[in-house]
Order: sequence, then structure tokens, then C-alpha cells
Amino acid sequence: MRIEVICTGDEVLTGKTINTNFSRLSRRLTELGLLVVRETTVGDDRVELRAAFDVAARRADAVIVNGGLGPTVDDLSQEVAAEAAGVALDLRPEWLETIRGFYRRRGRDMPPNNRKQAMLPEGAELIDNPVGTACGFAIDIGRARFFFTPGVPSELDVMTENELIPRLRAMSGIDAMVHLKRFHSFGIGESRADHLLAGIEAMDVEGRVKLGFQSHYPQLETKLTVAAPSHEVATAMLAPIEAEIRRRLGNFIVAEDDGTLEGAVLEHLRTQGGSLSAVETGSHGGLGARLAAADEEGGVFLRASSGNGAAVVAGSLGLSADASLVEFAEAARRVDGATHGLAVAIDSQHGAVRIAVADPESGFERRAVIMGGPNRARQGGVELALDCLRRRLAGAPVDERIDFEKA
Amino acid sequence: MRIEVICTGDEVLTGKTINTNFSRLSRRLTELGLLVVRETTVGDDRVELRAAFDVAARRADAVIVNGGLGPTVDDLSQEVAAEAAGVALDLRPEWLETIRGFYRRRGRDMPPNNRKQAMLPEGAELIDNPVGTACGFAIDIGRARFFFTPGVPSELDVMTENELIPRLRAMSGIDAMVHLKRFHSFGIGESRADHLLAGIEAMDVEGRVKLGFQSHYPQLETKLTVAAPSHEVATAMLAPIEAEIRRRLGNFIVAEDDGTLEGAVLEHLRTQGGSLSAVETGSHGGLGARLAAADEEGGVFLRASSGNGAAVVAGSLGLSADASLVEFAEAARRVDGATHGLAVAIDSQHGAVRIAVADPESGFERRAVIMGGPNRARQGGVELALDCLRRRLAGAPVDERIDFEKA
Repeated sequence: MRIEVICTGDEVLTGKTINTNFSRLSRRLTELGLLVVRETTVGDDRVELRAAFDVAARRADAVIVNGGLGPTVDDLSQEVAAEAAGVALDLRPEWLETIRGFYRRRGRDMPPNNRKQAMLPEGAELIDNPVGTACGFAIDIGRARFFFTPGVPSELDVMTENELIPRLRAMSGIDAMVHLKRFHSFGIGESRADHLLAGIEAMDVEGRVKLGFQSHYPQLETKLTVAAPSHEVATAMLAPIEAEIRRRLGNFIVAEDDGTLEGAVLEHLRTQGGSLSAVETGSHGGLGARLAAADEEGGVFLRASSGNGAAVVAGSLGLSADASLVEFAEAARRVDGATHGLAVAIDSQHGAVRIAVADPESGFERRAVIMGGPNRARQGGVELALDCLRRRLAGAPVDERIDFEKA
Repeated sequence: MRIEVICTGDEVLTGKTINTNFSRLSRRLTELGLLVVRETTVGDDRVELRAAFDVAARRADAVIVNGGLGPTVDDLSQEVAAEAAGVALDLRPEWLETIRGFYRRRGRDMPPNNRKQAMLPEGAELIDNPVGTACGFAIDIGRARFFFTPGVPSELDVMTENELIPRLRAMSGIDAMVHLKRFHSFGIGESRADHLLAGIEAMDVEGRVKLGFQSHYPQLETKLTVAAPSHEVATAMLAPIEAEIRRRLGNFIVAEDDGTLEGAVLEHLRTQGGSLSAVETGSHGGLGARLAAADEEGGVFLRASSGNGAAVVAGSLGLSADASLVEFAEAARRVDGATHGLAVAIDSQHGAVRIAVADPESGFERRAVIMGGPNRARQGGVELALDCLRRRLAGAPVDERIDFEKA
């Protein structure tokens, strides 16, 4: 099955908006074995959009169009779809009511120009958008089935999962599911991981298991994929390979699948009835932000105190500005009544990172110089702080050298 | 002049690599009035690449091809270019020597497969790459001039500035530049802004000024573009329209051009010798993160204290958990010795947001219920908190209703 994607919008064409919609969509479809063979971006331009539709209509089986479903005059997708399919636009009262309800729940009247979003090509299949006013739809143009999706990323993602994938799978006749196993590591780069995992694919003698990497600093994602008729079969095929990956990557693995490093830290603490208070300087609040977002059950992450300079932060903990970082971590746990204190101080200009962990028994400090500039220092420093605490809680060595620090 | 871009590579097509090369390239060309009308991405696939070349060769004047110039077998650009142009590949001894020199300076021998990078279509114009071994080149295919560029971002950028732009400007004969003016607002949605600014474009009777919007919740960006021969002419053309936009969007405008809301808050404080301490619950530390990142000069944003529950945060400020939010803001400024305190408490499950500002004279609280789910409540709540303080500092009303809150 030939799948093409057409993205529309001056914002994307002129480079103002980076086309992350396409990369997210294509990555997700690729995971399921639904390969995209071409992507085309055109602006909010009737002639270009029509030409892109016409060409794709002649050669593709499925075409996903992203964008151009908004309420303003430069949103052209429905109109051009109707022209290309040779049908008129038609008001869909049920979607108009959905839009009105959307505004009503917000205590407002629908602005008149939103009515445009309920105009679809005659005969189009309406595709639900549970999170916005842009209506998705599908229609045949030429030999291809066209699927129209909204440009707002969250709306596209929901529609992709709930509506597009089931339809594309049915069209493709692919019934084997692609199963995915993910390992998240911190401290090793892609080339080192590739080297450490040499020969892993060959453990499956039939060559059905594929190894891949995706680097998103400071973490590396190691992925195994296998096409199998059921979850049980896939699990059995992957089990020995997963075990070997855990053995080779060792303590660098911080989480698996949907797990996160900060989630692993909080889970360790929760299991032992612990709690955590954090203090951070030079990190732009990154440590507290990640812990707060991860503590969904609540009660483990208590508080983060963050600032750009050490003096005010020290003062708020009753410390002098020249206190040691272990004293910061110790004061954080004492002030908030937490079992654990985690402190990070980042000098982003020089990449210099200091980390301290304090628990009821003792405290320690870890230092590193992170390479690659201020943003990497902040991201890497926060990651290293969380990882030091994870390693401490897991009984793993806290000073294993990482690829991102200066020797 | 019709310019198209063709990007090639499985990494980009499968979404593993986000196509930032295209967005950077197009943004830069757009600034110069060299508008890209279409972008196409294909994989490392001979047939698809050839088809993309052939189509572009029939309709474009200039085609920029990015990627596929590497030393490995899946790098196909030179080969397919030669086929499409109907010529053979030819070894360029001068580029082979450049590659050898590149390795020699690094104390290594050239690996044999790099020789492939010196094979160009017969008659192609060599385009220098001063920072890598991939040779750029230009050749006519059909009615278009094709420019081949390397996929490594730093190599592409150097070639764009030094080689592509002069050639494209000469081809286009354009000497006008496109000038861009941006307004950032908070509190009005795209449809309302579109409605408020109806007729704005018509203020330029010659129709040279274009109005556009870009919504990135919770802010809306309103953009004016105009092609003019110089900055002075553009400024004069835009001035009356800018003034009218300021009048119509009023206090909803939080910043212009490269300015930010948090930057505006810090600038107001800096001007009056003030400083700020923040306290936040339920916001995932978003308020402190934005203030810390924006306070580049330092010394105005002092500290943020954040947590998921109010009790621990209250305790750290010497307050009881049932203190009013104005007392939180007042305590934040007192503890840290700041002139201003800003407090936000977000109940993301219900979208309920409370904000308090305390300054040396007084304090006030603003409440709102933000629509659209927990993430929107957090982002909107942090934005509203910053905007309340901005309005207070600017002498603007702090309780103007926003489109994202329940009536």
C-alpha cells in the first residue's frame, strides 16, 4: 500500500514552523509497518494544493493531508478537496452542533467564521476530532483515499491513534502487529550503544527482530521491533534479546517502555516510604519541573526551590551562600521534612555541574563538566542529578563515567 | 521564480530525524524574498528520487536538493541526477584531492568509499563545501537549475549562505527584501483576532502588506509581512498599520517581535529597580522555569518555590496551609527580600487557577477557570499569572476577561 502525506500551510512552507507533525506521524506509522513513501509540503495556495492532490490521487492508495482545516480564509483543505473530487461543499449540521457545543461549554457564542469548519465535501466520511473544532474527513479522489487531519499537534495525534491507524490497517491488510520494546538509557551515545549491542539482531536466527536507536539528548532510546501475529509470540521472541540488552547496557538503562527516569526515582522512593525535596540553581527549574510532572499519585515529590543565583536560594534554606552542596541537599530535606534531598548547581557557561544527594544516613557529591554548550549543560545536569539519586536508591555505582562529560 | 526543495533520506522520511534543514533553509530564503513553493521528501529510493526530480524539472526554475551526497551506497543524489540529466558520472580529480586533504589534515587516509563523493554528473558546476567532504553541485535538468546540497546541517548552512543565495538572487533578479513585524498576544483566540483586525490589510491600498496568524497556546502571534526595497521603506509602510493593530488588540499584546511576556515582566521590574520571587503549586514549576530562562542579565528573578501540594510550600514560607494566596505572594517577597511576589495555585483537574500579586503597597488576587484540560490549565495559569503581573506593572486592568476562561 502506497501512503503519501501532504502538509499544507505557509507557516510550515516558509520554515516558521518546523514540521514536527510529519515526523511524529511518519514515525508512528513506521512503527506499525505502514510506510510513508513521500511527503509534500505546499503553502496556503489553492493552485499548489490542488496540484499536489491531483498527483497523489493518481499514484497513492492512501493520502494523509495535514492542516488547512481552520476557520480562517487561508484554510483551504475542504474547498480544494471538494474541487479535486468534483463535488460541492455541504454543511454538516451535526458538526456545526459539535462546534457550537465546544463554544457553549466555554460559555461563549460560536464566532461566525467557525461555521466554515462544518462545510465538508459532499459524500465525505466525517472523522471525529474529540479535542478541537476542526473536523477530520475522508474522501476518495482518483484512485486514493484521502484523509484530512487538523494542523494542531494534539488534535492530529488523537485522530491518528483513534481514527487513522485503524482505517489504514484495514486498508493495508497487515494483520501482524509490529511489537516494540524500548529501553531508555542515560550516559552512552548512539555509536557506543551500537558498538555495545553488535550482533544483537542475529540472536533471532530468522532475522525478524530489528534493532534501532533514537537519540534525544540526554537520553538514548534503544528499540527492538518484531512483526508477530500476537503479543504472546512477540514477547517470547524478544525475551532473550531483551535480557541480553539489559546485561550489556547495565546500569545505564534508566527506564523501559513508557517509564521515565524521574518516574523510576519516585517509584524507588514510594516503595521505601520516602519523599524528596529538591534545590537547584542555574537549571532553569528543570529538576522540579520533571519531578512535579512525574509525581501523579502525589506525596513523594514535596517541593523544589530554584533560582539563578545561590545566595537567595541558600538564604531561604537558612544557609550561608558558601555552604557546601551537600548542606543544601541536607537543608532541603530538613526544611520540608523529606527523607531525601537532591541538590544541583549548574554553571551553564562552563558546563560545570555539581550534584548532591542527602538521605537519612549520609550525603555525597558528584561533579562533572558537561560538553556542548549551556543548554546541554542544563539538560545533562538535571538528568545526571536524577540519575545519581536513581543509582543511589538502586544500589548502583553513582560515579560511572558518562559519554557527555569531559574526561 | 519558482523554487522547490527536495529532501532525501530514510531518516527524514520515517520521521526519525525532524526536518529542520528544510525549515532553516526556507526561513532564510523567505527573509530574502526567495519564496519556496513546494517541498518534497523522499527516502533513499532510486525510483522515488528520480520521479521527484523529473516532476520538479518540468515546472520549477530552481530546485534545491538536500541530502544523498554521502559516501555510502544509500546516498543516491549524484547518480540519479546524472540519469535525470542524461549524462554520465565523471570523476572530479580536484574534489578527490579536496577529500584527501580533508583526511590528511586529520592525520588519516581517505577511506576508499569516499571516492564516490568526487563523482559528479558530466558538465555539473562544482559548488564548494568548505566544511565537509560532500561536494555540492549544480546542473540543468529539464527547465530547472538543480542545486545539490549536503544533509549535514552545518555544511548545508555554509553552502546556503556562501553559494546558493548569491546564485538564487542573481537568477531571480529580486532586490526587495521581505520585512516581518510580529505581535504576541495572550487572551484572544485566532478567530477573535481575525475578527478584530478585519480590514487591516486594506490600509495599504496597494495590497503589499499581508496579515497572518500563528496560534501557539496560550499565545497568538499576529504577523505583518511586506516586500520592500529597504528597511526604511518597509518601516514607513508598516508604521500606521502597526499603530492600528496596537489600538485594536490593546492590552492583550504582551510583547512584539523577539520579545516575550516574561521578558516584558522582567524589563518592567528592572526599570523600576524591582525584583521578583515566585511561589507556585500545581504548575509543574512552569512559572519559575520561564522566569529563570528569561532573566539573562540576572538579579531580577530571585527564586521560585514550587510543589504539587500547598502545605509543604506554605510551611517553607512560614505560613499555615490555609493562608490566603495573597499571603503566599507577600511571604515570597518577604523571605527573599524581593520587591514583588507572584503566586499561582493551579488545580489542573478542574482548570481552577488562582493568582496573587504582592508589591510594596498592596496585593490582589485574580481567579479563573481555564478550559481544555490539565495541560492547558497549567500553561494558561502560568501565562495568566505572568500577564497579571505585567498588567499591574504597566498600569493596565488586571481582570480583563480572556477567551480561555469560563464565563
